[in-house]
Amino acid sequence: MKADKRLIDTATGREAADFVFKNVNVVNVFSEEIVTADVAVTNGVIAGVGSYHGMEELDCTDRFLCPGFIDAHVHIESSLAAPFEFARAVTQSGTTTVVADPHEIVNVCGAGAVRYLLDATENLPLNVYLMLPSSVPSTPFETNGADFTAADMAPFFSHPRVLGLGEVMCYPAAVAGEETVLEKLALTADAGKRADGHAPGLSGKDLQAYAAAGIGTEHECTTFAEAAEKLRAGLAVLVREGSAAKNLSVLVNGMLDSDLPADRFLFCTDDKHLDDIARDGHVRWNVRQAISLGMKPITAIKMATWNAAREYGLRDLGAVAAGYRADLVLLDSLKQVTVNTVYKDGRPVSERFAGLRAVQAPEAMLHSVHFRDVTPADLALPVRGPAHVIEMVPYQIVTRHAIEEVPAQDGLFAPNSDYTKLCVVERHGRGGGIAVCPLKGYGITGGAIATSVAHDSHNVIAAGDNDADLVLAINHLKQIGGGYVLAAQGKILGALPLPLGGLMSTAPWENIQDEAGAILAKAKAMGIPYPVDPFTSLSFMALPVIPELRLTDRGLFDVTAFAPVQP
Amino acid sequence: MKADKRLIDTATGREAADFVFKNVNVVNVFSEEIVTADVAVTNGVIAGVGSYHGMEELDCTDRFLCPGFIDAHVHIESSLAAPFEFARAVTQSGTTTVVADPHEIVNVCGAGAVRYLLDATENLPLNVYLMLPSSVPSTPFETNGADFTAADMAPFFSHPRVLGLGEVMCYPAAVAGEETVLEKLALTADAGKRADGHAPGLSGKDLQAYAAAGIGTEHECTTFAEAAEKLRAGLAVLVREGSAAKNLSVLVNGMLDSDLPADRFLFCTDDKHLDDIARDGHVRWNVRQAISLGMKPITAIKMATWNAAREYGLRDLGAVAAGYRADLVLLDSLKQVTVNTVYKDGRPVSERFAGLRAVQAPEAMLHSVHFRDVTPADLALPVRGPAHVIEMVPYQIVTRHAIEEVPAQDGLFAPNSDYTKLCVVERHGRGGGIAVCPLKGYGITGGAIATSVAHDSHNVIAAGDNDADLVLAINHLKQIGGGYVLAAQGKILGALPLPLGGLMSTAPWENIQDEAGAILAKAKAMGIPYPVDPFTSLSFMALPVIPELRLTDRGLFDVTAFAPVQP
Repeated sequence: MKADKRLIDTATGREAADFVFKNVNVVNVFSEEIVTADVAVTNGVIAGVGSYHGMEELDCTDRFLCPGFIDAHVHIESSLAAPFEFARAVTQSGTTTVVADPHEIVNVCGAGAVRYLLDATENLPLNVYLMLPSSVPSTPFETNGADFTAADMAPFFSHPRVLGLGEVMCYPAAVAGEETVLEKLALTADAGKRADGHAPGLSGKDLQAYAAAGIGTEHECTTFAEAAEKLRAGLAVLVREGSAAKNLSVLVNGMLDSDLPADRFLFCTDDKHLDDIARDGHVRWNVRQAISLGMKPITAIKMATWNAAREYGLRDLGAVAAGYRADLVLLDSLKQVTVNTVYKDGRPVSERFAGLRAVQAPEAMLHSVHFRDVTPADLALPVRGPAHVIEMVPYQIVTRHAIEEVPAQDGLFAPNSDYTKLCVVERHGRGGGIAVCPLKGYGITGGAIATSVAHDSHNVIAAGDNDADLVLAINHLKQIGGGYVLAAQGKILGALPLPLGGLMSTAPWENIQDEAGAILAKAKAMGIPYPVDPFTSLSFMALPVIPELRLTDRGLFDVTAFAPVQP
Repeated sequence: MKADKRLIDTATGREAADFVFKNVNVVNVFSEEIVTADVAVTNGVIAGVGSYHGMEELDCTDRFLCPGFIDAHVHIESSLAAPFEFARAVTQSGTTTVVADPHEIVNVCGAGAVRYLLDATENLPLNVYLMLPSSVPSTPFETNGADFTAADMAPFFSHPRVLGLGEVMCYPAAVAGEETVLEKLALTADAGKRADGHAPGLSGKDLQAYAAAGIGTEHECTTFAEAAEKLRAGLAVLVREGSAAKNLSVLVNGMLDSDLPADRFLFCTDDKHLDDIARDGHVRWNVRQAISLGMKPITAIKMATWNAAREYGLRDLGAVAAGYRADLVLLDSLKQVTVNTVYKDGRPVSERFAGLRAVQAPEAMLHSVHFRDVTPADLALPVRGPAHVIEMVPYQIVTRHAIEEVPAQDGLFAPNSDYTKLCVVERHGRGGGIAVCPLKGYGITGGAIATSVAHDSHNVIAAGDNDADLVLAINHLKQIGGGYVLAAQGKILGALPLPLGGLMSTAPWENIQDEAGAILAKAKAMGIPYPVDPFTSLSFMALPVIPELRLTDRGLFDVTAFAPVQP
């Protein structure tokens, strides 16, 4: 915050404020009290809390004013919305700041994606801070769109909105002290910046090593014992509640049952879909859920605001106090976290967005799906005896590595409703391959699904019970520049274009939500059994860092052995 | 903290640690628990907390290990010891980090003093961070050694050990939004650094304005209500316990009686003399006192460590956890805060100091007392009717502005035991003057005292009941390069040379303490009534920012009117 004469003159009362919240119940994160007062705002910054007059005043009797919510760890890409529309969506429920790790889009577009994101979020009514993706590519056993090495990330560390190194998912490499990871961590430390963690279940000496390497946070805790151990080791614990991973009730109940202080607990969503954001709100839902479990409202709000600002060194965010940016949430109910109006820099976000336009993405990012049309011959899978089969595990993203007889015809794998044909097609135009294997547990019948959202390299992944629909879906996906495609009985049944890196749409978020809902409903009707999600579950089948068996564009990968399956 | 392969290898157990505290009760500031474990140290950094072996091991059964203490605001000069000796003195009782504001020495030597301090503290076994003095000179109504303007301070903001702007004492100027203060605050904000406050009693809208200006801390709270208001306004509250100002019991009792969270309360000493440091310890005494008042030991230790590190952005300090610097205090008793051994970067401080030598100060800083010898004629004060008299107020540093008849002879003021002669002699060689006035309440009989420690401009200040001893003391002070001098009946009764800027000695701190004790005892025997301190009380008589009447080298200054007294 820069010393500002008019702001000071407003604070002393020598000048009228631009805007005053009159008679509002202020949530004070410093004293952990609710204090009724006026809050004066000038030049987008809070000038004072006390008794004030302004050129514009709003009577807020019986309402509550708290700092804007901070999502301490989020992948914007998971919303399917480009940054501008993501910002429109999440600010509605009170999120005014996100710490985003653009891991997905950087896997597709490399450093150019970071430049685009910094541009696209420069003047948004949402503070977007970035953590530089630390693990691109996730392994050397697949073809992604671009690498993002220490040398690639170095120039970004000096950007004021780059806070550090994104979740170090390759935690075994960090614990092993591997040079490539240490190099990135050293860059981060030299820049005086932070490094986020991602190490599910890491414990004991390996956890100590992870902390010693300079990792400062963790958002993968699934039990309170894990959270407590990580807290003791010095890691701030991000309590995650997203669309898929829901850890809040376990962790908050643990907090309530323990004497551990809350000051190093934060909130994050990690991955959250638009329908969930629209229905429940964004970080607002974490706060709401925590309060409903019995947490004091002030504690939950402090976790969502001040604690996050403190952890990430965001000096003028996270409090309703003089000198802090007027990123504020006016609530009708504190306990229900009922959002009345969200303010960014002292103005309602709806007003801030009016007339604002999204920054255009570079053409290359809007045309990122490149492969020669596939033919049925490309998808042929010869079988001789028992085959390696990826078996989905309900409710989990781990898979089982089965070896069993699969249906065959003329020496080639012949998919049916039990054994789906899974295909991965390299789509970055980098000369990668096409790989095919049997998939069990997906159950699609009479058609095929294809998507360019496939962690972490985001090649095209497709699953179907017949080659004709697979070929149709895969090739159509190229035509629409990536996204989701359904094909059945020789026809395209539905398509959601995600032209931005094959991962995000630039359409209004309300439209994306509608279209995503429609295509999801159609896909579910194709025989895919609950709880398998037609797109999300499929998108993990190519991720070669989660056990046991995965399919990349180079073939089957045995994650347990961390080596390609020998044919 | 830089990612370090050997550190990681120690953490995992692949390599033996350099040093292991075995079986120690670890004070964990994150979980606010005491956990018994081994603490492994490698390369001066904590590698892990758990079960470890090392090349050197120390059985710490029944002992406690806590982070090194942090003094969040201190003037090193007040110890009378140069930085090296100050470091030797304060580390003994567990202080391993100080945030120092070199306000006094910069008033004498300007930017050169900042350069010297950064050099002199570069490789000390004490982390010395600096806040750049914000108010040099304190007023334009006196002659100091050097100015320290925004332009002078600018180059220092990029130094990694410069944390920001020192206590903004000119708070009325900040609240008024004066350009010279805003310029310094803007420089601070642009550098992403912090600004400390100093605004006793500031409240209401003026306090809001002070916070809006970017001030982040306050160490001048004398009541808990004041502390609570400042906390609510967003200022971190430094609980001060020094040699003169003692606010700890009031503030800690207030904390214990309230529900306010402790996370933005810190400890500081501000000004503490060597005899108090030697007897009670340094920040250790704040911790000890807080516990004795009923504060939980873990809370008091967290205030002295993690809270301070967090507030000042000292990322690898303030915790016993992997990746944190091994600045540690081994305690025999937690409740009594009985220090067994203090470790800096993993080694006992005594060992770290062995063989280490102080950085030599620049010659100019060792020869800073420049004035032509004074004569009795220089000290003559004509009186015609009632005179302006500075009247000391017991137990306070404010003075009263009296106008009364004073003893005179031949039309000149003739001091006696009721009316002392107070003299200020400009000593920076900048062409300033000599000023004289009557002083009431000092009571010196049969001699004179002179010192170059006189806030904030540190001209020579002298007080006596006869001109001969005054002249002798003042001129002798020049010969010894500044310090303290006593003269009685035409002889020098004692002298403590403080050649470093006329403020500090480079002698071993034990010697300084002995000599300061000896000269103080002699001074007290000269009739100066308790509680007036012969040197400290005198040193404030030239400070033109504290009401009501002061004497500078330019004459009497009416602080209430904030204007020179018209002759």
